[in-house]
Amino acid sequence: MYVGLRILLVVIAYMIISPIGKKLITSTVMKMTEKQRLSENRAKTLEKLLINVYSYAILFVLIITLLSIFHIPIAPLLAGAGVVGLAIGFGAQGLVSDVVTGFFILLERQIEVEDYVTAAGLSGIVEELGLRTTKIRDFDGTLHFIPNRNISNVSNHSRGNMRALVDISIAYEENVAEAIQLLQKVCDDFAAKDDRIKEGPDVVGVQGFGSSDVVLRIIAQTENLEQWDVERQLRKELKAALDQAGIEIPYPHQVNVTKKH
Amino acid sequence: MYVGLRILLVVIAYMIISPIGKKLITSTVMKMTEKQRLSENRAKTLEKLLINVYSYAILFVLIITLLSIFHIPIAPLLAGAGVVGLAIGFGAQGLVSDVVTGFFILLERQIEVEDYVTAAGLSGIVEELGLRTTKIRDFDGTLHFIPNRNISNVSNHSRGNMRALVDISIAYEENVAEAIQLLQKVCDDFAAKDDRIKEGPDVVGVQGFGSSDVVLRIIAQTENLEQWDVERQLRKELKAALDQAGIEIPYPHQVNVTKKH
Amino acid sequence: MYVGLRILLVVIAYMIISPIGKKLITSTVMKMTEKQRLSENRAKTLEKLLINVYSYAILFVLIITLLSIFHIPIAPLLAGAGVVGLAIGFGAQGLVSDVVTGFFILLERQIEVEDYVTAAGLSGIVEELGLRTTKIRDFDGTLHFIPNRNISNVSNHSRGNMRALVDISIAYEENVAEAIQLLQKVCDDFAAKDDRIKEGPDVVGVQGFGSSDVVLRIIAQTENLEQWDVERQLRKELKAALDQAGIEIPYPHQVNVTKKH
Amino acid sequence: MYVGLRILLVVIAYMIISPIGKKLITSTVMKMTEKQRLSENRAKTLEKLLINVYSYAILFVLIITLLSIFHIPIAPLLAGAGVVGLAIGFGAQGLVSDVVTGFFILLERQIEVEDYVTAAGLSGIVEELGLRTTKIRDFDGTLHFIPNRNISNVSNHSRGNMRALVDISIAYEENVAEAIQLLQKVCDDFAAKDDRIKEGPDVVGVQGFGSSDVVLRIIAQTENLEQWDVERQLRKELKAALDQAGIEIPYPHQVNVTKKH
Amino acid sequence: MYVGLRILLVVIAYMIISPIGKKLITSTVMKMTEKQRLSENRAKTLEKLLINVYSYAILFVLIITLLSIFHIPIAPLLAGAGVVGLAIGFGAQGLVSDVVTGFFILLERQIEVEDYVTAAGLSGIVEELGLRTTKIRDFDGTLHFIPNRNISNVSNHSRGNMRALVDISIAYEENVAEAIQLLQKVCDDFAAKDDRIKEGPDVVGVQGFGSSDVVLRIIAQTENLEQWDVERQLRKELKAALDQAGIEIPYPHQVNVTKKH
Amino acid sequence: MYVGLRILLVVIAYMIISPIGKKLITSTVMKMTEKQRLSENRAKTLEKLLINVYSYAILFVLIITLLSIFHIPIAPLLAGAGVVGLAIGFGAQGLVSDVVTGFFILLERQIEVEDYVTAAGLSGIVEELGLRTTKIRDFDGTLHFIPNRNISNVSNHSRGNMRALVDISIAYEENVAEAIQLLQKVCDDFAAKDDRIKEGPDVVGVQGFGSSDVVLRIIAQTENLEQWDVERQLRKELKAALDQAGIEIPYPHQVNVTKKH
Amino acid sequence: MYVGLRILLVVIAYMIISPIGKKLITSTVMKMTEKQRLSENRAKTLEKLLINVYSYAILFVLIITLLSIFHIPIAPLLAGAGVVGLAIGFGAQGLVSDVVTGFFILLERQIEVEDYVTAAGLSGIVEELGLRTTKIRDFDGTLHFIPNRNISNVSNHSRGNMRALVDISIAYEENVAEAIQLLQKVCDDFAAKDDRIKEGPDVVGVQGFGSSDVVLRIIAQTENLEQWDVERQLRKELKAALDQAGIEIPYPHQVNVTKKH
Repeated sequence: MYVGLRILLVVIAYMIISPIGKKLITSTVMKMTEKQRLSENRAKTLEKLLINVYSYAILFVLIITLLSIFHIPIAPLLAGAGVVGLAIGFGAQGLVSDVVTGFFILLERQIEVEDYVTAAGLSGIVEELGLRTTKIRDFDGTLHFIPNRNISNVSNHSRGNMRALVDISIAYEENVAEAIQLLQKVCDDFAAKDDRIKEGPDVVGVQGFGSSDVVLRIIAQTENLEQWDVERQLRKELKAALDQAGIEIPYPHQVNVTKKH
Repeated sequence: MYVGLRILLVVIAYMIISPIGKKLITSTVMKMTEKQRLSENRAKTLEKLLINVYSYAILFVLIITLLSIFHIPIAPLLAGAGVVGLAIGFGAQGLVSDVVTGFFILLERQIEVEDYVTAAGLSGIVEELGLRTTKIRDFDGTLHFIPNRNISNVSNHSRGNMRALVDISIAYEENVAEAIQLLQKVCDDFAAKDDRIKEGPDVVGVQGFGSSDVVLRIIAQTENLEQWDVERQLRKELKAALDQAGIEIPYPHQVNVTKKH
Repeated sequence: MYVGLRILLVVIAYMIISPIGKKLITSTVMKMTEKQRLSENRAKTLEKLLINVYSYAILFVLIITLLSIFHIPIAPLLAGAGVVGLAIGFGAQGLVSDVVTGFFILLERQIEVEDYVTAAGLSGIVEELGLRTTKIRDFDGTLHFIPNRNISNVSNHSRGNMRALVDISIAYEENVAEAIQLLQKVCDDFAAKDDRIKEGPDVVGVQGFGSSDVVLRIIAQTENLEQWDVERQLRKELKAALDQAGIEIPYPHQVNVTKKH
Repeated sequence: MYVGLRILLVVIAYMIISPIGKKLITSTVMKMTEKQRLSENRAKTLEKLLINVYSYAILFVLIITLLSIFHIPIAPLLAGAGVVGLAIGFGAQGLVSDVVTGFFILLERQIEVEDYVTAAGLSGIVEELGLRTTKIRDFDGTLHFIPNRNISNVSNHSRGNMRALVDISIAYEENVAEAIQLLQKVCDDFAAKDDRIKEGPDVVGVQGFGSSDVVLRIIAQTENLEQWDVERQLRKELKAALDQAGIEIPYPHQVNVTKKH
Repeated sequence: MYVGLRILLVVIAYMIISPIGKKLITSTVMKMTEKQRLSENRAKTLEKLLINVYSYAILFVLIITLLSIFHIPIAPLLAGAGVVGLAIGFGAQGLVSDVVTGFFILLERQIEVEDYVTAAGLSGIVEELGLRTTKIRDFDGTLHFIPNRNISNVSNHSRGNMRALVDISIAYEENVAEAIQLLQKVCDDFAAKDDRIKEGPDVVGVQGFGSSDVVLRIIAQTENLEQWDVERQLRKELKAALDQAGIEIPYPHQVNVTKKH
Repeated sequence: MYVGLRILLVVIAYMIISPIGKKLITSTVMKMTEKQRLSENRAKTLEKLLINVYSYAILFVLIITLLSIFHIPIAPLLAGAGVVGLAIGFGAQGLVSDVVTGFFILLERQIEVEDYVTAAGLSGIVEELGLRTTKIRDFDGTLHFIPNRNISNVSNHSRGNMRALVDISIAYEENVAEAIQLLQKVCDDFAAKDDRIKEGPDVVGVQGFGSSDVVLRIIAQTENLEQWDVERQLRKELKAALDQAGIEIPYPHQVNVTKKH
Repeated sequence: MYVGLRILLVVIAYMIISPIGKKLITSTVMKMTEKQRLSENRAKTLEKLLINVYSYAILFVLIITLLSIFHIPIAPLLAGAGVVGLAIGFGAQGLVSDVVTGFFILLERQIEVEDYVTAAGLSGIVEELGLRTTKIRDFDGTLHFIPNRNISNVSNHSRGNMRALVDISIAYEENVAEAIQLLQKVCDDFAAKDDRIKEGPDVVGVQGFGSSDVVLRIIAQTENLEQWDVERQLRKELKAALDQAGIEIPYPHQVNVTKKH
């Protein structure tokens, strides 16, 4: 076929494909911005970056195609481009992995800012959800930077009521049934006067036999992030009630058998 | 051969293969929907996604084939497409792995919503089985998001009766045979009045010699998820019976040998 | 050479190879079914699957070969098929690994249904040996699903007699030789009246010096899965005998040296 | 086409691309220097290195292209160059990974000199942020050299106020409510006279029941790096206050039951 | 060159190479059988398997070569064969690894049937050394199936005399030199009357200062697998000798300082 | 083009490139020798090795190029060379990794001979820094050989002053403020008379509440490697001062509550 | 060019290269034998093996080259050879890794027969250094087979004097300075009469404050493998000296505070 016709076909193809690709990128980024509540800023950056990469790539393909129509050997150029591409790709690999993981975390709303989560073995309140990095503020004040690729299982502690759990020990000499009755009454009074309680607290029963104590377990459902304070309040009130009723929280016991040497 | 004939053959092949592929996809998704009880919604999404991917892929093959019949060099185009494909593939790799694993979990009914399971080191009640992610609600209220690819061994605690196990200690001074007889009687009474018991409870015998106690083991089969409550009830009743019979649950013992300095 | 002759040769080759391959598959599956006691059902599924895959593959080769004889460029088609193949392959990779491992587990009879085994860190009674997954019922009632690829070392606890092992402590003040004699007598009586004992029980000697006790070890061989009950019975009888002979199982001892402050 | 024209085209392309690439490198390095506060020195080194690599690479492509226009076989040369490139690449792989990670640590300001951080399992004050290595001075005087590729999650302890946390035990016999009141007063006085306190300290309540003590928790927010000294001061003052009020910090307790042998 | 001549050359080559390869396989297997003491059975299986694989492979090469002489395009066929080969290879990969490792274990006689070994974290008496799997019988009766590829370091406990080691404690108040003398005498008497002792037993000296005891160490070399019984015998006799000499094996000591509250 | 011209061009290229490469190697090695203080010996070895490898490589390229100009098929030769190259490369891979890591350790002066370092989990004084292996002498006399590739994070304990840290306990009954005053005085006297002290020692305050003691922490900065001796001296003097002042380092305390059985 | 000339060139090249390669192998093995003290036997085996491999490889290249000169298609043959090569290579991969690592262990004299080393987590006296496997005899009599590839860091305990370290406790009531003086005197006497001591023993000072004791550390340098016996002797003599001087090695202390219930 005539070389001229071939060149024409290639250039036309370029002129059709180039703007279509750019529009596709722009509209995709816009949709993503809406759905994922990306900040205006980040969306612009992302769009610009993608269009740049796209333009260089398609321009490179055009040049190579034309060169090969003129029978200029393209193998060396392709090889060189391949090496550069590999070098960039190697550097960007982690980045791609970060962005893809981050995308799904956003898409499935696994984490949102202000949530209390555990991810990649670190816990705290989420401060920022970035494309590459998630920032989590630990309760001791530390700021953790977690590359998104490190996030696998996510444990979100801010999705519903939380459990407050108190284990309380009584002596083997006490009457278990009476103690349960007493503790249940304290729990009922507590629930009546505290709005943060969603369910319970209930004395679920004898959780175990310790070496010197019978362990009773009390479980409640509380408002999110209030579980620790409820547990502390509950402990205080339960202890006061046991003191008043004269029921002992036992110290470790030991039976001493005496033998002369 | 004439170029025209070749083009004709290629276009005809395209017109035959294209609709066949689409129908295959639709029917496959439909079958899967029925068998796996996929929600209508998710099936639609999946079908649309697959047909889109398929159409672009087959169109690309058609274009490349026609170009190469016109002797327009296709190597650069192929190389470019390869790079884009690799980039997408890299991003999608984890996703494919998630979907395949999720598919087999559904197919083999390893997990169902409302089951109490342990998977990827996390336990809880399954809230949602997604194509990419499984959501498990921990007993403390935390919501775990587990990418399906992380799920390997699955331990399903909701497939049949569960075992209730209570270890109870008596002093070395007690008569073991009598204690077993007494505890067995308590167990029998318990089984008689509690519907959740499926088998036992039975005192299986002397499980071990502790440093200050002889450990007796009691095992029962209970209705699913009732095992903990049965254990707690059993502990309460066993302790009451031992108290009544005057059999001691011993504190740690120590023989003191006195030596003057 | 004439194109016609080439086409003829190719088609003949196809017509010969195609049915031979199908027969090979059928006969292989049948042999496997017999030897490995595959259920009729699973054999049919496997055969149908393999023949489907085989037919599509050989048809694809035929088409490509014919196209290339007509000088229609096949590179794009091959590339496309390669990508699809890779995608399927990626998804199926784990599956192949599961099936191969499962095959060898069956072939070498490492596991059989009803065996008590430890595999992939999980223990229990085998409920089902699938091509992809092995189901193990834990003693606490949990059902474990283990993808076969996760199974590496297999510890089968149901292949022969099991050992019952009891460690019993006597005080430093006791005469060791006499105690061993007494315990050996109890063991001999036990062996005489219990059918499940295959060997022993024997007092093998002084296993160690504890901080307050001399530890004597007793070992027996019992019928499979009876080892725990034998141990429990043995413990009960040994304790009774020691009680009767006035030999003490010692509590922890401590020598107290008094010093005024 | 005429060989002469081809050569001309190639040489022109070289003369255009070569200086453009160099300028691109120079300007990129300059921008990076400004934004990331790279030292003048390091920027020069980086620029020189990149331009050297670039010049050799583009020269090599030129030579290969010309050779292949003269129909001198280039496959061996390419193969040789590939091997050399692979050898260098293998050596440089870790280096690239170091530089890319280091770049993002700088870009996102995850770490800055003088910060107190935990990275790659090592903690200390950052002394230097290099392109390849981060130097951290441990509190015991050790200097840690961490290749940047080893840095994944970063825990920065110098980004905001830190928490001071003191757990203090009181005896079971004490009145919990009164003790809390007393401790809170000490805390309030402490906050009034110490500028480093940003919030609290507050007695948050009964954190747990120890074997011999009721544990009360006190939490404050302090200036960065002052948390340990605040904790130490707080401990000293709380102890003094408890001593004065006659509230006991209990020793371990044990209930001794005496039994004659 | 004439096509006929080419075909002739190829066919002749085939007829020469084919039987040579088969003979090579047979003789190699025979040699291996002799040297490694493979059972007759396994050798036959191995030989048949290898000859089958070899025949199919060489036939395939012949067919492809002939086809390409007739200018029938072989690329599709090669690609197809490659895929099938890969699929089989993937399945067989673990198998090859098993066989190679197993081969070296046999060749270097690392393990032999009846040896007591530790491999892949599991210990026991070797029951069978297979090409793919090694079966080890644990002392508790469990049968371990270990795929050979899992075997890396091998610890063989049946290659020479074993050490019997007894640590014995005496009170701080005892005279160490005298105690060593006494224990050495017991050891010498023991060695004199017990054939299983190969060296020692010797009191090597004061191994450590315990919290309440001076620890003396005794070491002997015994016949293989007799070390445990020797240790037990030694312990019994040493205790008897200490009892007779009135040297105390001390209980834990504690100095009690009394303070009024 | 004429074959003669091509050959001429290739030979000329060879004669230009060959000596240039050799000079490049020589000068690079010389620079490295100067900067990294490589021993004369090792530099010679390295240079000779590199020039050998280089000469063989370039000769091979020359031969292949000439052969292909004479249309002698070079594919088999290339394939053969590739296999040999891969085999050598596989063997050398670890070596390259060792050398590259070793190079950066030298370049960044992470480790120098006589330093006390922790690397690859092993600690000691560096005896030799090789291109492949680093030798570290442990304090117990063991000589560790660490392949450089195993060295990742390096903790160098010989880069500046080290911290001496002493925790000292006083009884709950003591006056904390007075005790701190006393200890601080001892520290000041110590600092006055000991040249190795660079800063402190200072009593930083109450580090914690033990079960029977109040823990005070003392921190100093000392000359490198003198930290342990300073700690030992400090401990001795602090104890003497506490003895003299009658302040008790408390034994573990226990409150005994007596209960009749 | 004429086919004849090509064939001639190839055959000549073969006849030159073949014997050169064989001589190279022989001389390399001979050099290695001298330097590394390989046994005569192993050298022969190695030489024979390498020459075999080399002859087959070069013959294969010759045949392929001749075939391709006759225009017999060699792609299938190459592919077949590649597969066989890969199969062998896969099996030999671990072997190569073993040999290379073993070579460097020999070259750098990291391990020699009779040394006491720790490698791959196993310790003992080296019995044999093989090309593939290192055999280490554990002190308990076990023979460890370690494939060389598993050996990474090597800790050689037989390269110079070893440290003997004894920690000895004295009561808090003792005078530390006097105790150190006394112990130092014992150490000096010990050093005077024992040839195995190379340095010390020296009382380095107060190593720590235990819960009931002041810990003094004594360090000496001894002849290799004599460190344990020196420690035991030292312990014996130190205890005797303390006994004589009436300095107490303290039992655990406890302060008892009595409280009525």
